[in-house]
Amino acid sequence: MAQAVAEETIVNGVDVEALGQKAEALRNDPGLGKSRFRITNRWLGCGRNRSTVTGFHSLRQEIPHERPFELEADEPPVLLGTDEGANPVEHLLHALASCLTTSLAYHAAVRGIHIEEIESTLEGDLDIRGFMGLADDVRKGYENITVTFRVKTDASPEKLRELAGFSPVLDVVANGTKVNLRIETRA
Amino acid sequence: MAQAVAEETIVNGVDVEALGQKAEALRNDPGLGKSRFRITNRWLGCGRNRSTVTGFHSLRQEIPHERPFELEADEPPVLLGTDEGANPVEHLLHALASCLTTSLAYHAAVRGIHIEEIESTLEGDLDIRGFMGLADDVRKGYENITVTFRVKTDASPEKLRELAGFSPVLDVVANGTKVNLRIETRA
Repeated sequence: MAQAVAEETIVNGVDVEALGQKAEALRNDPGLGKSRFRITNRWLGCGRNRSTVTGFHSLRQEIPHERPFELEADEPPVLLGTDEGANPVEHLLHALASCLTTSLAYHAAVRGIHIEEIESTLEGDLDIRGFMGLADDVRKGYENITVTFRVKTDASPEKLRELAGFSPVLDVVANGTKVNLRIETRA
Repeated sequence: MAQAVAEETIVNGVDVEALGQKAEALRNDPGLGKSRFRITNRWLGCGRNRSTVTGFHSLRQEIPHERPFELEADEPPVLLGTDEGANPVEHLLHALASCLTTSLAYHAAVRGIHIEEIESTLEGDLDIRGFMGLADDVRKGYENITVTFRVKTDASPEKLRELAGFSPVLDVVANGTKVNLRIETRA
């Protein structure tokens, strides 16, 4: 019986009891919420580069990842690269997909909504003449992104749409964010 | 001598002659520029999920990657995950870093600007109370992102800033993009 009660605190793989404790701590001390995520990136020539992610700041402490993550980027041969990794605009779609998916799973869990499967397809339309600087009336980034989710759950699509709306990456991609660009050079 | 001439067509690892031919083709037939990038993503429970990238559409053809790429996402233990991959907001920083870096390398190359090294650090400030739904006046995504580039080149920071401005991911992150969200459910 104790075990049955304990199992109910895990919904969608999320420990909702622990999540509730975090929320309570953040209500009592809002400054705990301020977080700073960071990466470093190194160019490897042409369209190849690699980011390293070692940790982040949150909850008033520096939190290392259990091991550093290395993320690869390259361009395919048709865009003059060597195809050693997904390209930057594909990585952007991954960031959006992963954030929407996690937002669905976590926010459903705290509301007692069970989800069995989540799959998604993301498609982004982009005219490469924008990047190439060949047409002033063509934007450089995605003109639009279409996300299609297929979710195995009893909850309604409307409810899930509301939960997906908590996604931080969706907020950035849909609404934009101030980017400060500093460039230092040396000969 | 033929070899010396051939070597000059590669700047920053980029084949500028081939890039010039692509630009010419796009000028003659603007419809070649229309591209569609796509990924699929599958939830693995809690904060874990994986994207697969197999190819894209561009230049009026379907272009497969030489091999499929699998991109992992997870949350660290402090955010109730198992830390099997960088988290979504870290992946977003990688997408931005990789795109800015490639934009610098390519656009410098076609202008004959030689670059020897590019390194960058990206930091994004985010209050997790936004994602948690604990404060209506706190946005969910990054409040701001600071990018610091260290570039070994003779070119000026001002010139490099202009070249970084061609980045598609910078355009999306700074200005936002329309996101169409479709959700299908099944019991």
